[in-house]
Amino acid sequence: MARGAAIAVIGAGDAPPEVLELALEAGREIANRGALLICGGRGGVMEAAARGARERGGHTVGILPGYDRDSANPAIEFAIATGMGEARNAIVVASADAVIALAGEGGTLAEIGFALKLRRPLVALRSWRQLEGLHRADTAAAAVTLALELAQRPSPRP
Amino acid sequence: MARGAAIAVIGAGDAPPEVLELALEAGREIANRGALLICGGRGGVMEAAARGARERGGHTVGILPGYDRDSANPAIEFAIATGMGEARNAIVVASADAVIALAGEGGTLAEIGFALKLRRPLVALRSWRQLEGLHRADTAAAAVTLALELAQRPSPRP
Amino acid sequence: MARGAAIAVIGAGDAPPEVLELALEAGREIANRGALLICGGRGGVMEAAARGARERGGHTVGILPGYDRDSANPAIEFAIATGMGEARNAIVVASADAVIALAGEGGTLAEIGFALKLRRPLVALRSWRQLEGLHRADTAAAAVTLALELAQRPSPRP
Amino acid sequence: MARGAAIAVIGAGDAPPEVLELALEAGREIANRGALLICGGRGGVMEAAARGARERGGHTVGILPGYDRDSANPAIEFAIATGMGEARNAIVVASADAVIALAGEGGTLAEIGFALKLRRPLVALRSWRQLEGLHRADTAAAAVTLALELAQRPSPRP
Repeated sequence: MARGAAIAVIGAGDAPPEVLELALEAGREIANRGALLICGGRGGVMEAAARGARERGGHTVGILPGYDRDSANPAIEFAIATGMGEARNAIVVASADAVIALAGEGGTLAEIGFALKLRRPLVALRSWRQLEGLHRADTAAAAVTLALELAQRPSPRP
Repeated sequence: MARGAAIAVIGAGDAPPEVLELALEAGREIANRGALLICGGRGGVMEAAARGARERGGHTVGILPGYDRDSANPAIEFAIATGMGEARNAIVVASADAVIALAGEGGTLAEIGFALKLRRPLVALRSWRQLEGLHRADTAAAAVTLALELAQRPSPRP
Repeated sequence: MARGAAIAVIGAGDAPPEVLELALEAGREIANRGALLICGGRGGVMEAAARGARERGGHTVGILPGYDRDSANPAIEFAIATGMGEARNAIVVASADAVIALAGEGGTLAEIGFALKLRRPLVALRSWRQLEGLHRADTAAAAVTLALELAQRPSPRP
Repeated sequence: MARGAAIAVIGAGDAPPEVLELALEAGREIANRGALLICGGRGGVMEAAARGARERGGHTVGILPGYDRDSANPAIEFAIATGMGEARNAIVVASADAVIALAGEGGTLAEIGFALKLRRPLVALRSWRQLEGLHRADTAAAAVTLALELAQRPSPRP
């Protein structure tokens, strides 16, 4: 069995409506393309992206900071309880073939740092213009297309 | 969406045929009962249990020690790359509603310790007779039945 | 600069007086022998061992489960805030050249499991008689002597 | 016993001479002020800062990515073997009262992200001008003074 591509969506737990809308669209696109959505499992960008993926029949994994599986948002199918606090960000990134970053603060910056360090390709979606060395996209569809290209892993649905 | 029960199967990466057969049967039973199989994602007991679950159409999650998703065994559908080494054992246990332990050595003992500490119910399947305070079963089917009862979480398929 | 031997003392956060007395003596002996004491940084066996080491002028490191350095017991000189919950047990063991285990429950069992897995020598001090493959001692002095021999690392004070 | 302030110095494992010189000076100043130096325990900025602290009689803690204590640089007095890979960056930051960041790449960015997330004050020393919300200093002495002020924890030597 070949595992398909896994794409992480990262961003703030508390985000404005236009950012949540982008996250929802990114989640839908990831599922449309047959890839797995990975996120931090909580609210905001994480929940919007997971809802988008589930709407289109995709699978969703949430990597939680605590030990309580029930702290996952309702759109998470597979809840991983790390008990590692913020260090769980490293697992979100490492478990993906590519990462899409929306607007966020400290936690998102840590995930971007891990993506650079672990050499996971990262696409900044209308965000993080102050950082060099990131790929960039202006629409959710373009971000997912670019992330899947960079992932260099076959997507299971043609 | 209600997440169903998740059962972890733990045991050695290098195990004799009769232990692998028990792991395979445990994986099949977990899938037959509609639960998710979680394991450490590598070989031996972890691979046998995951193969059993996949044979019966169940989902499988592998919590890997390293950063390389491709180090998962072929029966793992969802590979989580923790980069945490042996400490990933805590995540295997924490992400499950109940744990089934087969024969094993240090790593398995650490997982049993975490299960006791995190109050995840643990069923020893023909193993670990020297430890008190564990639930016990002699067949894979009995172990899965007991684990699901102890998990106190509804199984999604009736 | 050659680092001297580091000995971890593991055991319950809530322990009876005779176990705390053994931990105190083990801490004193570790410092008398010029070794570093490492522990989980909280109360019970961890605090007693650290107090013993400080009484004799030894250094003490506490590997805490949370992010709050001030949660360390008062005898901890160097407080490491892991934020990793119970998985911090793996760091306690990995950071030591040898481990002394007193009576304990789940957390201690996890640490013993890690010690076996990471091949850190482990001495059970009047405890854990149900487990095979451990070294054993009946007095704190004998446990420290054995741990330092097994550590095979020169102790800085002759 | 009151623990004094702990200051983390973060930056690249492979850095140009002028950055290493700044790290050395920062380590000296941290020890001069009686604070503990915490770092990632490896080469480059981590080693230069630790050497500076040891030159002035300060204590040094290295939080290592692997399980091998001997992978610490020679200026590390207390080597913590996390086995957590890059996620150990979260522990470096969480174990400090304030953080001084020199030039660096992905790993340093992850540490800055954790400092923001965990609300540890962070001083960028002639670096990271592209990021908003950081404190800034142009000399090692000014960075240490500012870090200790922000740490709001009494320094043990007057």
